[in-house]
Amino acid sequence: MNIFLDRDSRQSITKQLYTRLKTDILSGLLVGDEKLPSTRSLAKELHISRNVVLEAYDQLLAEGYIYTVDRSGIYITPGVSIAENITNQPSEKSSVIGLQFEDDQGTIDFRTGIPNLSLFPKNKWGSIYKTICQDLPPLHLDYYEPSGCYELRFQLANYLYRVRGVICSANDIIITSGAAQGFNMIATHFSSINPHVIVEDPMSNGITKTLASSNMILHPVPLDHDGLLAHQLPDHIDPSLIFTTPSHQYPTGAVLPINRRIKLINYATTKNAYIVEDDYDSEYRYEGYPIQSMQSLSPERIIYIGTFSKMLFPALRIGYMVLPKALKSAITSIKYIEDLHSPVLEQLSLAKFIESGLLDLHVKNSKKYYAKKCAFVVDVLHGVFDESETAHTDNNTFSNSNNSTSNRKTNDSMITDNMIKRPEIDLVNIPPIEITGHTAGIHLMVRFRDYHVSDDDIVALRNAGVTLYTAEAHTIIKGHYTNAILIGFANLSDDAIQKGIQIIHTHLLSR
Amino acid sequence: MNIFLDRDSRQSITKQLYTRLKTDILSGLLVGDEKLPSTRSLAKELHISRNVVLEAYDQLLAEGYIYTVDRSGIYITPGVSIAENITNQPSEKSSVIGLQFEDDQGTIDFRTGIPNLSLFPKNKWGSIYKTICQDLPPLHLDYYEPSGCYELRFQLANYLYRVRGVICSANDIIITSGAAQGFNMIATHFSSINPHVIVEDPMSNGITKTLASSNMILHPVPLDHDGLLAHQLPDHIDPSLIFTTPSHQYPTGAVLPINRRIKLINYATTKNAYIVEDDYDSEYRYEGYPIQSMQSLSPERIIYIGTFSKMLFPALRIGYMVLPKALKSAITSIKYIEDLHSPVLEQLSLAKFIESGLLDLHVKNSKKYYAKKCAFVVDVLHGVFDESETAHTDNNTFSNSNNSTSNRKTNDSMITDNMIKRPEIDLVNIPPIEITGHTAGIHLMVRFRDYHVSDDDIVALRNAGVTLYTAEAHTIIKGHYTNAILIGFANLSDDAIQKGIQIIHTHLLSR
Repeated sequence: MNIFLDRDSRQSITKQLYTRLKTDILSGLLVGDEKLPSTRSLAKELHISRNVVLEAYDQLLAEGYIYTVDRSGIYITPGVSIAENITNQPSEKSSVIGLQFEDDQGTIDFRTGIPNLSLFPKNKWGSIYKTICQDLPPLHLDYYEPSGCYELRFQLANYLYRVRGVICSANDIIITSGAAQGFNMIATHFSSINPHVIVEDPMSNGITKTLASSNMILHPVPLDHDGLLAHQLPDHIDPSLIFTTPSHQYPTGAVLPINRRIKLINYATTKNAYIVEDDYDSEYRYEGYPIQSMQSLSPERIIYIGTFSKMLFPALRIGYMVLPKALKSAITSIKYIEDLHSPVLEQLSLAKFIESGLLDLHVKNSKKYYAKKCAFVVDVLHGVFDESETAHTDNNTFSNSNNSTSNRKTNDSMITDNMIKRPEIDLVNIPPIEITGHTAGIHLMVRFRDYHVSDDDIVALRNAGVTLYTAEAHTIIKGHYTNAILIGFANLSDDAIQKGIQIIHTHLLSR
Repeated sequence: MNIFLDRDSRQSITKQLYTRLKTDILSGLLVGDEKLPSTRSLAKELHISRNVVLEAYDQLLAEGYIYTVDRSGIYITPGVSIAENITNQPSEKSSVIGLQFEDDQGTIDFRTGIPNLSLFPKNKWGSIYKTICQDLPPLHLDYYEPSGCYELRFQLANYLYRVRGVICSANDIIITSGAAQGFNMIATHFSSINPHVIVEDPMSNGITKTLASSNMILHPVPLDHDGLLAHQLPDHIDPSLIFTTPSHQYPTGAVLPINRRIKLINYATTKNAYIVEDDYDSEYRYEGYPIQSMQSLSPERIIYIGTFSKMLFPALRIGYMVLPKALKSAITSIKYIEDLHSPVLEQLSLAKFIESGLLDLHVKNSKKYYAKKCAFVVDVLHGVFDESETAHTDNNTFSNSNNSTSNRKTNDSMITDNMIKRPEIDLVNIPPIEITGHTAGIHLMVRFRDYHVSDDDIVALRNAGVTLYTAEAHTIIKGHYTNAILIGFANLSDDAIQKGIQIIHTHLLSR
């Protein structure tokens, strides 16, 4: 046999022999039922120990490449041939795929939904994790229940009650891999029961995609400055779900007032539908207390979904659902089918992080930082766009849409509560920009009096070093938010914000 | 107004006032359009600062409970009333739900698929994680690409090539939340394209459930001692997928010989189907080299799925898929919809763990430990069940089913390659027990000559302190594995194994 064995190789002689024989069998050089040399004669021929040959043959036997016939010898198994090519080396990586956001380095990215990543106390977090590892009895490395670690669910139930008014016990909570998994599980569950869902329009296009991928049928309801137009909830359909972001509407930033919340709950009750309350960044409220969750008003009617992506950091992928008791079992089963349960050690670390007060401290520090940052953005926007004019409204705080004598500014009439068809924008008597959503959260929305922002603008701005996002991208019925942009500010420096807004203004002026 | 404020409370006076007013509004004590006292007069009445009232009113205003009329005053918003009860405290946790496995404490649990949890170097792991946290630039706390961290995929591609012969680059890998997520994503993708799948019978009932939940139609193919009976692959259906565990069949432990692998690949090619290779515990092979993956024979035809649940620990929830290029984009989209991507910090820790040689070391140590443990189990089983007899076969290593003159023992005929209908078990000339699957992995299968194990036996044994699992539980066509039990041994002490097997024997004898 023509076999070359390299004694200087890092591979053992045995492995070389085994590999060579196998390759020859697979490639057809050694054919079915062909007899192999005896171990003794092959060892002699190759000047190697007989044990080496025995080991190599044994392995080929174990994998079925060869067979033995008692008192006769060793043969190649017939039928071993491959049509398809075999490469013997992993293909070279064509290029190192970096992290998604590396594309954006050097640009000013106004992406929403990303907290300030430098604020997270990652060293403290690492220490907690290490301590958890040290102290953990090995049996906690086993599989867990699908709903997640009790320690975290217990801490979370207390936290959510204290901070968001959510009424639940640890048993009502399922720990998810981010809010995204929560939305997907709900879509998976309800799509086969009743695919009709009511959604705010605009709403996060990530959630829209999730719902669409489960073949849900979306029924958009428009918004005004106070959020969902509850009196426009459709009578003629029976939805299974109503998606809402009542504490800081995404993307407009509206706060849904209590009367609309009640109307929404009553509607859901009549329709026997569940409300999905997406409470994604409302820990950060800069005026007054945090707006309480809707869930507290009707815990058995509302699926409350939250995430630590904005409170801590997105790469953590820990979110949670607070479920009505009637849904717990079905959603838990889906979680089990999807991934058994979420990773445990970071859940335990997070439970400790909450218990020791570090979450409260971090949220407090972040809130202070974001409040300043948000005020800065508002100032810069007005400084750049208003020039001499200085009007800005916050209808979430100072007006109530049901009360015609309230102190709402006239530019509210961009979208009114009383008109199902949205009116044309009145270009007279409104200021150059209107800012909403800046009393809470880590982004705000800007509507222009004079500008509409197209895809071409987005491309041009990208070339000018600014990545900008429009509210229109999150609409279902198109055309009503073409004059609105979103400013995610949490993870940008003041310089970047100032420069970015200036570039946007210059671009819009120069078109 | 009848408002009691507790100056000794841990709640601020402002929050007490706000909460009280809100409760009165929600409960209907204060009704719609009722005028509230002015801030000045309420402050005077309650002997508190006017600022306290201003703050409480401001918050109620922000949440829409009240509205203001210029130069008139402050009013309750109409329509704020709740039919459903509001509890003001989170319900007491009815009982502390412990971890799933706490039920089993004090019992001897022969569960399969659980490694020895004490072997994992959790302190080293914790230190690596802490170092990752310290050294990580904050921007790595951001969202990642759906396929997972490049660092881990790169290390994994090299590891899988080196140890399992898998041919892939980092770009072909998706990091999943355990193998479970991989199976679910495949089922999600293919169920809408072509729901017909071929499965080994028996196969893991966890995977069966996953496939069933996506409405896949299962076509079982029986096994013999060498695994899937490739010549029984059905001609009359066109499956989209073929599920197999070629390196250590679950649950029988068979190793699929190369000629059947080739037959299976050729079948899949003819049918334009993909093979799903579930390579769940084959790092641990106690005789010869590890059986190489099937994937290396046909990388564009085979979806290779693995997990760190058995190599490291289940609570980690890190698995991986090596995908044919044609599937990468579709499965990545599903991963994105399901949970955006898997948690990052543990992925980076694992990349470092592999890079620094700790994975190899851990697998080496574990393998040595399991080999001893496995041999011990085999000895105890024979000692207890064979009494004077001492037969045990390992057809995976010493026989080849295509070769009638091989040294296979006669008890092979329990299931033969040449008969589509399984024959009755021949009770003559076979030893009391037959052990399979003990040359690899962390469980083995025992078939009894004289005993069938029913659900009643499982209950009785549970009461006697032993949790036992049957192969029959993993079958699709019932009745052929009623005499087979599974012994997961990795996480049990020698004493527990000895005692547990003795209890099983005593029970079966005494029925």
